[in-house]
Amino acid sequence: MREIIVIGIGAGDPEQVTMQAVSALRRVDVFFVLDKGEVKQELVDLRSEILRRYAKDHRVVVGKDPERDRGTPAYVEAVDDWRRRRADVCADLIATELGTDQVGAFLVWGDPSLYDSTLAILDDIQARGELSFEVEVIPGISSVSTLAARHRVGLNQVGRPIHITTGRRLAAGWPTDADDVVVMLDAQTAFTEHLDQDATIYWGAYLGTADELLVSGPLREVAPEIEKLRAEARERKGWIMDTYLLRRSEAKA
Amino acid sequence: MREIIVIGIGAGDPEQVTMQAVSALRRVDVFFVLDKGEVKQELVDLRSEILRRYAKDHRVVVGKDPERDRGTPAYVEAVDDWRRRRADVCADLIATELGTDQVGAFLVWGDPSLYDSTLAILDDIQARGELSFEVEVIPGISSVSTLAARHRVGLNQVGRPIHITTGRRLAAGWPTDADDVVVMLDAQTAFTEHLDQDATIYWGAYLGTADELLVSGPLREVAPEIEKLRAEARERKGWIMDTYLLRRSEAKA
Repeated sequence: MREIIVIGIGAGDPEQVTMQAVSALRRVDVFFVLDKGEVKQELVDLRSEILRRYAKDHRVVVGKDPERDRGTPAYVEAVDDWRRRRADVCADLIATELGTDQVGAFLVWGDPSLYDSTLAILDDIQARGELSFEVEVIPGISSVSTLAARHRVGLNQVGRPIHITTGRRLAAGWPTDADDVVVMLDAQTAFTEHLDQDATIYWGAYLGTADELLVSGPLREVAPEIEKLRAEARERKGWIMDTYLLRRSEAKA
Repeated sequence: MREIIVIGIGAGDPEQVTMQAVSALRRVDVFFVLDKGEVKQELVDLRSEILRRYAKDHRVVVGKDPERDRGTPAYVEAVDDWRRRRADVCADLIATELGTDQVGAFLVWGDPSLYDSTLAILDDIQARGELSFEVEVIPGISSVSTLAARHRVGLNQVGRPIHITTGRRLAAGWPTDADDVVVMLDAQTAFTEHLDQDATIYWGAYLGTADELLVSGPLREVAPEIEKLRAEARERKGWIMDTYLLRRSEAKA
């Protein structure tokens, strides 16, 4: 039976890999990579460094990541469609490149359970019933845990909830029932929509890497600094990955 | 300058420790432990095993964990008071047991950013201004990431939020603005309050350990099985640590 391991490799620092992930990396015959055709050469290099440090004899097989329709307002449908086409590509790679007694793997930045589509893609392929394989998942250190660690703060206040959401949703309104909000996938600096809140922001970009940026402070005061830093870094590097925690000390009535 | 490292050691499997945590463990002169006076001997043994595998020459210093007032309805105040008294104990341990050029550490199960009081205790001690030390935090694999990995599911649906909360809060009502709810610290099986929801539950106990229990399925169907398993395991072992994800497929109007 084919085996596929989905391995969380941490937020960017090769030292964030767990012992469990190292054992898994050593068992892998074929690593599958979807080429995003983007200029994040540093991420490709970091991934290569992880393989160089921890993997044994292996092949890396690269598939072409299909384009996602970013123009449509139908976000969920566009992502679903994209995922189906990614599943087509991955199914083909697995069928043609992985022997029936071999171990394949997908490496996932951060943790496979947080805003990553790899597990859904593998579910999709299995549901088609044409290819059979076992799936194992190795959890990883997420950018959210890394953000909190670098700022030396907890994500929750005593006995209170944590809401993890997207920039798109935060832009539409502060979530109900939560004063501690973690925001991921924010391409639009949605925190600037909430300068009326009496909140503290803990922001980080390129977490775990040599280019890591950290800013924290009262939201209203530091928001302009974050916007500026973020724009400069994105311009300089061609891409940005950032996340942040917004903490409101008192629930609004 | 004294240095204190707060090290996330994963959900229970010593192999979940990161390379970064291993490097940190090797640098530690004194490990601080608060003796909870409970019968979780297995957790004590697991922690010893982690030190045996990864730490070098070191001392383990044990302080007495103060009692927490579990009778009061003033939950937050009781926890605050408890935390202050724990800070007293820890400040005393650091002052008397850690040399000014030494490295001390607190080991935290899971991730230090999720429902753990160690960082707040250290903040409290630093705010008193009597003891100075640097704090470093090493993120760990949380029981939440482990739960998702063992069930091979993501925590979020496409573009949707994740709400992490306590059993106490879930018992008071399903959170607004979230269909995917992760529940921690639930001593009262609060999921049984929501059998009217069309939800799937992914439940796990003793995650990452040899005694791990996993159940998933439609909430209404598997709730009785989880209640039974949970009660039996708790009776047999004298303690239980569990967490779960509740996933509602359609937002209620």
